Amino acid sequence: MTPSNRDRVTIVEVGPRDGFQGIAPFIPTATKIDFVRRLASAGLERIEIGSFVSATAIPQLRDTAEVFEACRAIAGMIPQILVPNARYGVAAIEAGARSLVFVVSVSEAHNRNNVRRHPLESADDYARLIAACPQGVDVRLDLATAFDCPFTGRVAEAEVLDLLERLIAIRPDAEICLCDTTGRAAPDHVESLFATVRDRFPGVDRWAFHAHDTYGLGLADVYAAWRGGVRVFDAAFAGLGGCPFAPGATGNVATEDVVSMFRQMGIETGVDLDVLLPIACDGALIPGGTPGGRVRAARSGLGSPTCGR
Amino acid sequence: MTPSNRDRVTIVEVGPRDGFQGIAPFIPTATKIDFVRRLASAGLERIEIGSFVSATAIPQLRDTAEVFEACRAIAGMIPQILVPNARYGVAAIEAGARSLVFVVSVSEAHNRNNVRRHPLESADDYARLIAACPQGVDVRLDLATAFDCPFTGRVAEAEVLDLLERLIAIRPDAEICLCDTTGRAAPDHVESLFATVRDRFPGVDRWAFHAHDTYGLGLADVYAAWRGGVRVFDAAFAGLGGCPFAPGATGNVATEDVVSMFRQMGIETGVDLDVLLPIACDGALIPGGTPGGRVRAARSGLGSPTCGR
Repeated sequence: MTPSNRDRVTIVEVGPRDGFQGIAPFIPTATKIDFVRRLASAGLERIEIGSFVSATAIPQLRDTAEVFEACRAIAGMIPQILVPNARYGVAAIEAGARSLVFVVSVSEAHNRNNVRRHPLESADDYARLIAACPQGVDVRLDLATAFDCPFTGRVAEAEVLDLLERLIAIRPDAEICLCDTTGRAAPDHVESLFATVRDRFPGVDRWAFHAHDTYGLGLADVYAAWRGGVRVFDAAFAGLGGCPFAPGATGNVATEDVVSMFRQMGIETGVDLDVLLPIACDGALIPGGTPGGRVRAARSGLGSPTCGR
Repeated sequence: MTPSNRDRVTIVEVGPRDGFQGIAPFIPTATKIDFVRRLASAGLERIEIGSFVSATAIPQLRDTAEVFEACRAIAGMIPQILVPNARYGVAAIEAGARSLVFVVSVSEAHNRNNVRRHPLESADDYARLIAACPQGVDVRLDLATAFDCPFTGRVAEAEVLDLLERLIAIRPDAEICLCDTTGRAAPDHVESLFATVRDRFPGVDRWAFHAHDTYGLGLADVYAAWRGGVRVFDAAFAGLGGCPFAPGATGNVATEDVVSMFRQMGIETGVDLDVLLPIACDGALIPGGTPGGRVRAARSGLGSPTCGR
């Protein structure tokens, strides 16, 4: 996949990690595994299936090792595991993970809130993880608050570039995902920041974007990022993933909405929308979830008993 | 307002016409007038307040003459009236209207379904209306199904250009609005069609865009149109305006979402979001309506008794 490939994009399904982690009632392990299997059957070839992380911090994901064990053999699907630091990264590798996601927040306030460290300390920890990675482990770097911070507002481009410079040097072939953590990034900001980083770091050939739909900007920002050359997009089925900073608001851009938009654009995602929709409808019914997105309602009829709200 | 003005856009509030017309239980005239007054107080300087149209066809709007009479004196607000043909256009002018919207659908199937005529017959009727317009009557031309038709799918660019050629010649200084009637227009299509028509008809200096959010593309398409040089956007408070072709789905892009996006982009709309939000929340509670949009929920909290669903 190169940024110049106009006709194809990759969608990374993050619902089983980013969506589920915000749902308080524990989702049974078998249910999680079933969702991952069904999502893979819809054509989603990369799924963030969970996180190796403190069970005290995120009790919902305490069974990620089990979910991973059950899902690692699904044909044609790469299970991604998110790790908050090198220690958990090494644990994930030891469990057999071959696709890790490491998160650093550009905003000091947000990074301290997330992992109680300065972003540069997280960068050092990232270097430790990379040093511990055996051959064949692929790494995605999620840059949280790349556009906007819930505590301090708009994030300066220079801060993003400075941090990226340090992080990219550590592992130049990592996939880099800029994340709109708050859902407040304006599309022109998304488009221009991607244009800037692609120009500044021409050696990086895998850029990704993580959108939130809290303020309805999900697809606008995905389109803007696509215009800015991005070809890998995170999304969560049923738009799961509440935003802790806007109570009651929905979170991640919905996978079915993203697939639908690219289909209208004539761009292949590899995902079968007709297979995905019933899965998204079931996802919307998970107790405690805050589903989002539009395509479920438009295509299935609001109020349908099989389609959540 | 010229398309080259980057820092300002105009939002045309169409809720009182396009939103209300799809609501079956009759909204009392006094309620309609109150909404128009409040929307104007939020800074919306152009409001489509209703339609001169057969009361049999659209009973909800049978009181537009009364609403117009009450609203025409609101300071700083231009009340727009939509008319389906020259006869109703003349009636609107006689009632004092100075801002008319005439609709022609590019798709023959859709135009016949709407007004039982071939688009070229509607073009002839438009010419009759323009001939009957006294000095000082401003005209907006809405080109329905400019991208996609509910009956026949994607509309060819050549059809749009041919029809526009004829219509623009009739009145070169009309504002031209390309409408995504189904909500299925992909953002790259929106952006490229506006680029094409602006290039092909350089004499037209007022282009507008009418988005639907049925499939979540509302803001993506507004951003795409903005990138294509558009500076006038239709929107409906609370996202009112159900789509008859997708039962249960929401319709027009929500005014509060559009205002919020442009605010994030640093572009002035003249609309005060804090004044608009409670109005949108009240609009979402109109019995029989299908509200949409995201910003209400994100800013007010879902489940708030003052904010619809």
